[in-house]
Amino acid sequence: MKRTAFFISDGTGITAEALGNSLLAQFGSISFNKVTLPYVDNAEKANEAVRVIDKAGNDDGHRPLVFDTIVDEATRAIIATSSAYKIDVFSAFLKPLELELGSHSSYSVGKSHSINEVNTYMDRIESVNFAMENDDGAKTRHYDKADIILTGVSRCGKTPSCLYMALQFGIRAANYPLTDSDINSTELPEVLEPYRDKLFGLTIDPFQLAAIRHERRANSQYASLDQCEDEVQSVERMLRQQNIPYINTTHFSIEEIATRIIAQKGLQRRIK
Amino acid sequence: MKRTAFFISDGTGITAEALGNSLLAQFGSISFNKVTLPYVDNAEKANEAVRVIDKAGNDDGHRPLVFDTIVDEATRAIIATSSAYKIDVFSAFLKPLELELGSHSSYSVGKSHSINEVNTYMDRIESVNFAMENDDGAKTRHYDKADIILTGVSRCGKTPSCLYMALQFGIRAANYPLTDSDINSTELPEVLEPYRDKLFGLTIDPFQLAAIRHERRANSQYASLDQCEDEVQSVERMLRQQNIPYINTTHFSIEEIATRIIAQKGLQRRIK
Repeated sequence: MKRTAFFISDGTGITAEALGNSLLAQFGSISFNKVTLPYVDNAEKANEAVRVIDKAGNDDGHRPLVFDTIVDEATRAIIATSSAYKIDVFSAFLKPLELELGSHSSYSVGKSHSINEVNTYMDRIESVNFAMENDDGAKTRHYDKADIILTGVSRCGKTPSCLYMALQFGIRAANYPLTDSDINSTELPEVLEPYRDKLFGLTIDPFQLAAIRHERRANSQYASLDQCEDEVQSVERMLRQQNIPYINTTHFSIEEIATRIIAQKGLQRRIK
Repeated sequence: MKRTAFFISDGTGITAEALGNSLLAQFGSISFNKVTLPYVDNAEKANEAVRVIDKAGNDDGHRPLVFDTIVDEATRAIIATSSAYKIDVFSAFLKPLELELGSHSSYSVGKSHSINEVNTYMDRIESVNFAMENDDGAKTRHYDKADIILTGVSRCGKTPSCLYMALQFGIRAANYPLTDSDINSTELPEVLEPYRDKLFGLTIDPFQLAAIRHERRANSQYASLDQCEDEVQSVERMLRQQNIPYINTTHFSIEEIATRIIAQKGLQRRIK
């Protein structure tokens, strides 16, 4: 059975997608064709969306699902004329929240993602710059300014995790890849010693590491399973001996790696 | 009036946050103290969460709000014993969805963010690598592989926008900063000419640009309002003459810049 799911918003669509994906993930046996329609912020775009929704329903032979976070009531009313089954977030929750808070809602679009304060914007940009400049052990002299320093073998997920923490939460995250000589020692690399409290290790299943490295350098020693097993074992031993917290990233997405590190280390976000 | 809002999940908390922030943004007159509690995935953590919630209610003198995306019913039942006002996403929407889909939900935690397929993970990593390697005009020889090439003056938001598109959507995004000699010409830089269809411009209010540059290099010519005004004017003129689409990023968050570019250029995501 094929069903199409629409995530519709007058803003970025990020909330509708997050909510919709969370709910649809509970129905593993059904394969959904997912379509995001962002910036549906006037009657013309809403009517066009209805046309697209109804066409998908005809093509599928099943009515589509619509996850709708449109704030404007008139625009939402147009979407409601489609043949879809609707999960309407604002209708469900906004009125009860108004009662609870004793306050009228402003029905303003996309406020949650709009960053008006230049300070917040700059915190974010600065954190992205920090992650890029302190990527891959390129520089270590700014480690005193880091909120967190990720370490582990090459290709275990350090860089994207740092960038995600920077973009999403304004956290200053550096990363230090362990070199061959680091890996063959049970000591912490000297350059990391002063920042012991900021360190967090990432490890990974050697099979997955080999697959990832293979994409990068096919059939190299670097990508061989033997090499990957050796490196992972040695690094895990070192992290345990040095009492550095670490997580195995194999079954985690970037979001999960980042949020688990933040929770475990109690890091403070600069962006909420 | 101070109210505390909790975003509680047995996964990353990203969905609860996105939903909660969207709803709370509609109540601009109230200042919320926002707390995310991720990975609340057993009775012990749930009981601790209830303690924290109830304490916040006592401290505030108002019951807190709880936005809850916990999948497990037993854990959710513990959260329900708190004194908070609850927005319970799964209770509200999962049962009706089961009826609509004629299928039982699996009640499995955090599936939406778990990336099991190594291909998806690698698409994401490759896109992040691409953005980093093709940042700031460092290399231009991979532009044939780019999905999009952002251009504009220094510090207008190109790098974070590229990284966001890579991390969130698996889009290969390069960026090319316009140099002084590029800016003083009404022609497209020669290196960009073959990739005209992939180009997208970012522009920005000169006052905000000056503020951002000032953070980077205080009191420099580079950060002066005159310089920023000149550059922005020249670049906008060039983009218009060359018929390159562009947006003004001044009042947009990174999410908005990225999703607007994707919508306007009809880019295909590699991650849904």
